[in-house]
Amino acid sequence: MNMLSKSQLSFVKSLHQKKFRKEHALFIAEGYKLVSKFILSGYQVHTVYSTADNMPKMAKLSQNINLIETSPAELNKISTLQNPQGVLAIIKTREQPVYKPQNFKDCFTLVLDGVQDPGNMGTIIRTADWFGIKQILCSEDTVEVYNPKVVQATMGSLARVNVTYASLPGILKEAGVPVYGALLSGTSVYEEQFGTEGIIVLGNEGNGISQEVQERVTKALTIPGFGGAESLNVAISAALFCYEIKRHS
Amino acid sequence: MNMLSKSQLSFVKSLHQKKFRKEHALFIAEGYKLVSKFILSGYQVHTVYSTADNMPKMAKLSQNINLIETSPAELNKISTLQNPQGVLAIIKTREQPVYKPQNFKDCFTLVLDGVQDPGNMGTIIRTADWFGIKQILCSEDTVEVYNPKVVQATMGSLARVNVTYASLPGILKEAGVPVYGALLSGTSVYEEQFGTEGIIVLGNEGNGISQEVQERVTKALTIPGFGGAESLNVAISAALFCYEIKRHS
Repeated sequence: MNMLSKSQLSFVKSLHQKKFRKEHALFIAEGYKLVSKFILSGYQVHTVYSTADNMPKMAKLSQNINLIETSPAELNKISTLQNPQGVLAIIKTREQPVYKPQNFKDCFTLVLDGVQDPGNMGTIIRTADWFGIKQILCSEDTVEVYNPKVVQATMGSLARVNVTYASLPGILKEAGVPVYGALLSGTSVYEEQFGTEGIIVLGNEGNGISQEVQERVTKALTIPGFGGAESLNVAISAALFCYEIKRHS
Repeated sequence: MNMLSKSQLSFVKSLHQKKFRKEHALFIAEGYKLVSKFILSGYQVHTVYSTADNMPKMAKLSQNINLIETSPAELNKISTLQNPQGVLAIIKTREQPVYKPQNFKDCFTLVLDGVQDPGNMGTIIRTADWFGIKQILCSEDTVEVYNPKVVQATMGSLARVNVTYASLPGILKEAGVPVYGALLSGTSVYEEQFGTEGIIVLGNEGNGISQEVQERVTKALTIPGFGGAESLNVAISAALFCYEIKRHS
């Protein structure tokens, strides 16, 4: 087992920061199960650091990955987790598709306008994957999808759902499909007859959907409340919309 | 403004730990908005520590609370949060009701069997409150509801939802209402005609519902999946059940 060099250590640790993830087009995923999902989904792998006990199964996954055995103490130094999980992979980010109106045809798309919490973002991606929704379009001020907390919370679903960042108003204007907004004043989502295509817009945790995006919403929908809570968590709202869409499929 | 004494500091910090919360029957809530919800819901307050700028509105909430002005630096020392919010309250826990079969009549109850993540627990309480579900019964190995991360994630809904811990199998056996279990192999929740009463059982994040609790489930229900994710987050599952129950109300 080799010790990690100082430059290796500082390189991996630089990827804890958004700035360097963007510069190198790389991100970190941890744990055998999660890393294996990215590898099996065809993501390109820069390097995998693995403790001795995880080496055999990591080596079995792919012959071609750059696999480096690492002591638990050293893995601890480069991990983003409080409890490191024995495997840390550096993975190449994928090119983002450029959205055209045809991307919205015959499917449902989630649009996130300023979602900030990494756990919410990760849960939304995981839930979209469960319901077979394959694309998520985010405003530029939405939390970065390669934030390690997002990556871990997706439980591997990030490997199957496209997440793209863009300026929303122009794209929504041209979308050519219904644009549903999750708003506190709208018609009840229980009564909506969803068709086979559309966009569901979810807003920021504190402030909801921005004014300029609200102007592109063609139908406001509300999840009726029956108790005292002022609002629902945004990942919960996203899930309820996905669930209701699939009722009609 | 007085400095906090060493014994005050160490007393508040002891309440960061479950053992001392239980011993003193006290818990911590932070932030003006959250603390005000507990006060307005009639919770008894032991002490409120507040920075100078929050003092006037805290004083307006209630004349009878023990309100202590505290510097931001000192509040930082006793806070459970990374970014303290200017107000920290020590609040008395409430007596837990003892569950009898009549508690389950004419309403829906969520049962949590081993939920571990504080964020999930808090989100479940907040979501139950949104949908007007007023009682949550937890196995004894479910995360403690007074964990500060749970309290904060409830966004005040904890003040309106009863959360009780007990050994589940005996209580469920005597419940006398349908016991629905969220399981991967069951009939579709889309097709369930919920009546006006029942219990929804949700399991641990990794292992689901324990064997002995599964034996008390009278109907297994599944949220159909359409994509690649292996499972849904437990707070998401809870929300989808609450939503579907309310469709029929």
